[in-house]
Amino acid sequence: MSVYSPSIEKLIENFEKLPSIGHKTAARLAFYMLDLGEQETNEFISAILNAKKNLKYCSKCYNISDTDPCPICENPKRDTSSICVVEDVRDIVAMERTHEFKGVYHVLHGSISPMNGIGPEDIKLKELISRLSDNTVKELIIATNPRVEGEATAMYISKLVKPMGVKVTRIAHGIPVGGDLEYTDEITLSKALEGRREM
Amino acid sequence: MSVYSPSIEKLIENFEKLPSIGHKTAARLAFYMLDLGEQETNEFISAILNAKKNLKYCSKCYNISDTDPCPICENPKRDTSSICVVEDVRDIVAMERTHEFKGVYHVLHGSISPMNGIGPEDIKLKELISRLSDNTVKELIIATNPRVEGEATAMYISKLVKPMGVKVTRIAHGIPVGGDLEYTDEITLSKALEGRREM
Repeated sequence: MSVYSPSIEKLIENFEKLPSIGHKTAARLAFYMLDLGEQETNEFISAILNAKKNLKYCSKCYNISDTDPCPICENPKRDTSSICVVEDVRDIVAMERTHEFKGVYHVLHGSISPMNGIGPEDIKLKELISRLSDNTVKELIIATNPRVEGEATAMYISKLVKPMGVKVTRIAHGIPVGGDLEYTDEITLSKALEGRREM
Repeated sequence: MSVYSPSIEKLIENFEKLPSIGHKTAARLAFYMLDLGEQETNEFISAILNAKKNLKYCSKCYNISDTDPCPICENPKRDTSSICVVEDVRDIVAMERTHEFKGVYHVLHGSISPMNGIGPEDIKLKELISRLSDNTVKELIIATNPRVEGEATAMYISKLVKPMGVKVTRIAHGIPVGGDLEYTDEITLSKALEGRREM
């Protein structure tokens, strides 16, 4: 006999499936859910259902959005001659927080990873290339993650796009601001050295 | 303009309301939810709805359960002459994990706390007293939390019940097993000293 009633057990199990949620947190969330009023419960559930119903991919940049095109692609103030290429929708949010980039995005929805059987045709690369065909794009800023897969993807795109006459840049690697030289791993440090600039 | 689309923003907000979930985790959970298939989403939602629909309080011990009476109260192997009094439904689970207690429970759903305006009439105390009226209960084990409110509640119950001829006991306070004397706070240590037993 389980200690919890089947309905709670089931609810805890469902919360436990969520990423970064262990059994204890799942139990806490389940009991919190039980304490919620009817209105709040319905609000929670309709937030899930609405998100699943309303959200679609932007047909230009493959950002996730309530509208197509997404607010960024539709914003006339954004500079469409500069495209920042990211792996994931959440990376757009990270970039937007800098308030520095005024161009538009392209979400690859993954990175090339032969180890995991993900080839160039499995990410939104064809779609990126077709965006370059009208010659309005001047610069492609590759902001894939600084890991093996992200680097390989960056290299692949660069080789593919350069012959089309588009400037391809890669965001800088180096020591994070506030970081400590002593605790920086050697690869980051050598990248920081390599990317040094005259003062 | 917010960086996320309204539907995601709404979903993140809803996850953020859950206890111990900050903004970053809420965003991770929201995106996980978006990636779920239709079947998994429905399973998650029906787990919430079923739990809210099916669960009720046991009319004897006020445990939360799919059935009334709850499986513990209904189990003929449990000794109904011994009642363990706890503050919260989750405390039953903690007690059950010990596999030591063979009696039944009574959930107070709170503790007396004049600071928060919670008096004896706001917790399931009347219901506890009425369970004692048929004289079958021999011992009341008070397992309220070892905090000010829990102690006050334990004292209150003890004074109320002792004249009825029921033995009232309190679970022991002391150093947790595996704990370190050096890092034990002085109140716990004095309780441990006070509760010393002959070896």
